[in-house]
Amino acid sequence: MTTEPDSWTLVAGGAGFIGSHLCRTLLERGERVLCLDNLQTSRVSNLDILERYPAFRFVKGDISHPLPVEVMRQTRSIRRIYNLACAASPNLYQADPEHTMLTNVVGTDRLLRLAEQSGARFLLTSTSEVYGDPDIHPQPEHYRGNVSCTGPRACYDEGKRAAETLAFDFARMGRADVRVARIFNTYGPQMRIDDGRVVSNFIGQILEGEPLTIYGDGSQTRSFCYVEDTVDALIRLMEADLPEVTPINIGNQHELTIAELVEALGDIVGEEVEVVHRALPTDDPTRRRPDISRARAMLAWEPTTPLVAGLRKTFAWFASEHGARSHARPAPRVHAEPARSRI
Amino acid sequence: MTTEPDSWTLVAGGAGFIGSHLCRTLLERGERVLCLDNLQTSRVSNLDILERYPAFRFVKGDISHPLPVEVMRQTRSIRRIYNLACAASPNLYQADPEHTMLTNVVGTDRLLRLAEQSGARFLLTSTSEVYGDPDIHPQPEHYRGNVSCTGPRACYDEGKRAAETLAFDFARMGRADVRVARIFNTYGPQMRIDDGRVVSNFIGQILEGEPLTIYGDGSQTRSFCYVEDTVDALIRLMEADLPEVTPINIGNQHELTIAELVEALGDIVGEEVEVVHRALPTDDPTRRRPDISRARAMLAWEPTTPLVAGLRKTFAWFASEHGARSHARPAPRVHAEPARSRI
Repeated sequence: MTTEPDSWTLVAGGAGFIGSHLCRTLLERGERVLCLDNLQTSRVSNLDILERYPAFRFVKGDISHPLPVEVMRQTRSIRRIYNLACAASPNLYQADPEHTMLTNVVGTDRLLRLAEQSGARFLLTSTSEVYGDPDIHPQPEHYRGNVSCTGPRACYDEGKRAAETLAFDFARMGRADVRVARIFNTYGPQMRIDDGRVVSNFIGQILEGEPLTIYGDGSQTRSFCYVEDTVDALIRLMEADLPEVTPINIGNQHELTIAELVEALGDIVGEEVEVVHRALPTDDPTRRRPDISRARAMLAWEPTTPLVAGLRKTFAWFASEHGARSHARPAPRVHAEPARSRI
Repeated sequence: MTTEPDSWTLVAGGAGFIGSHLCRTLLERGERVLCLDNLQTSRVSNLDILERYPAFRFVKGDISHPLPVEVMRQTRSIRRIYNLACAASPNLYQADPEHTMLTNVVGTDRLLRLAEQSGARFLLTSTSEVYGDPDIHPQPEHYRGNVSCTGPRACYDEGKRAAETLAFDFARMGRADVRVARIFNTYGPQMRIDDGRVVSNFIGQILEGEPLTIYGDGSQTRSFCYVEDTVDALIRLMEADLPEVTPINIGNQHELTIAELVEALGDIVGEEVEVVHRALPTDDPTRRRPDISRARAMLAWEPTTPLVAGLRKTFAWFASEHGARSHARPAPRVHAEPARSRI
């Protein structure tokens, strides 16, 4: 994008985990960033880093409500809209499922209308959850998914599917230039320790000296993408000249079991890590792995951060946060309770 | 339901095809009916029949907008809410896909909130379209479907899936007592002649003396349920004491090809019927047939109107409407153009 001096890039959800990394990278690229966030699940401290940049503005607001006047009065100068606004962890998005659905549908609709009014290009961050519990592996974009529309995860999964529908309809009607990213598991610094994702859960438990909770037997797989790789893909997707409107998977193809993730973390900590097993939650997908051939072909992108390098940076960040919070707590230690299994 | 003298049954979409039949049956049962409809795709003449009943009230309003004050001021006396409000034919719901999505999501949310405030029982009319182009036959309710969330039908299919999600979330949170019907193809008097459904299309073409348009080769199947059977099922579902919240398929298990439907209509008209073939539209399902074992078990319901009897009533109604419109037009005749095939 040619950066005009008076143009803005709007990042909805810009105070969140991926959002704050995206804002920083956009600021480093010389873009002026208007961050809209309701601070529902964001770490407010993510804003501290961003507010050091003179080209950064923060507006508190919830996209399921009418957009704040501070955003609307910039309509004519908004050139790019990234929509990352929605709680993304099951424990957080299930706390108020109605709000989750409306954030995805009403919120995305408001931002699409803003894109239409401003002529801005619009990027929706969708999710691998649109594939539900997939029955083909890896998942290509044309796969229609295996989603329960009545289960407890549906507010997020179906909300994102409906948001994609809106984006494609705006594109088909010539109302906006849209891009749709389907983001697979992402990890890195600035995640919430309590957001219920497996990497932050595990690191939090290590730092608290607790055993690691594995849901089920640990044989379910995930593919973890380091957040800087994800952000690189989002910006490429926004800026690319694309021959067609199509969803694009963004994630890491390296698939590992939860048990293998525990092992990798053990290597980083340099200690044997204790685990406990709990029942799998309803509709928890057993396997998830992106087919990223489309991102490779259309964006010349693939993840470049090896898992151990990414986990090491993430662990170091959490440890320093944890140290700051607990005023130099003792180093991680390992419980030994006989009823618990080890990996 | 015990009909209290001051209680109301709200029927959103009550001026539409199924809605107007439902309103009439409820009125005949002694219920007071508040009909909320935006008249977007409804036949206004459907209201003529209903307005003869003293217990019928009509309010014009669009459920994707704040509910009209005439509805809200009855909040305390509303006991039942049927949501049938949404254009249901591809040509109509695709004309404004954003409105279709918001009708399903925002509209259903508003009515669910009204159910929560009033303590009314809520019934969502969902659709067989939540199964998309199914890869199992017949479709049981636990089948998760094969829906493209980015295609031109998604505004309806994903809109209805998202509406189901909201209904189940309201149920799970204890906010409302909900029922979800997945309605398969329904036909009968009071359909719009121009609404693009196959039965009304064919009858309209016969009455205009035009050849019948078959999309594809006519081997795709449908299962047609006569509207009085559908309405019977909806009322049973609303009034039943159900052990669990679950979607329930409502439709006719008798599956026939489009070519067989043409043949049945030919028998009714008593003439050979001419056809033309056109290309299948995008995402048009090739087969669709309900598994109604759940409706049989939980509602003691199954369709009782044979296809030929239902088609005969429907044809007679269209013919009398057509006669009224065209002031005694000549009887249906058959074109003979050599390039067109016959069935």
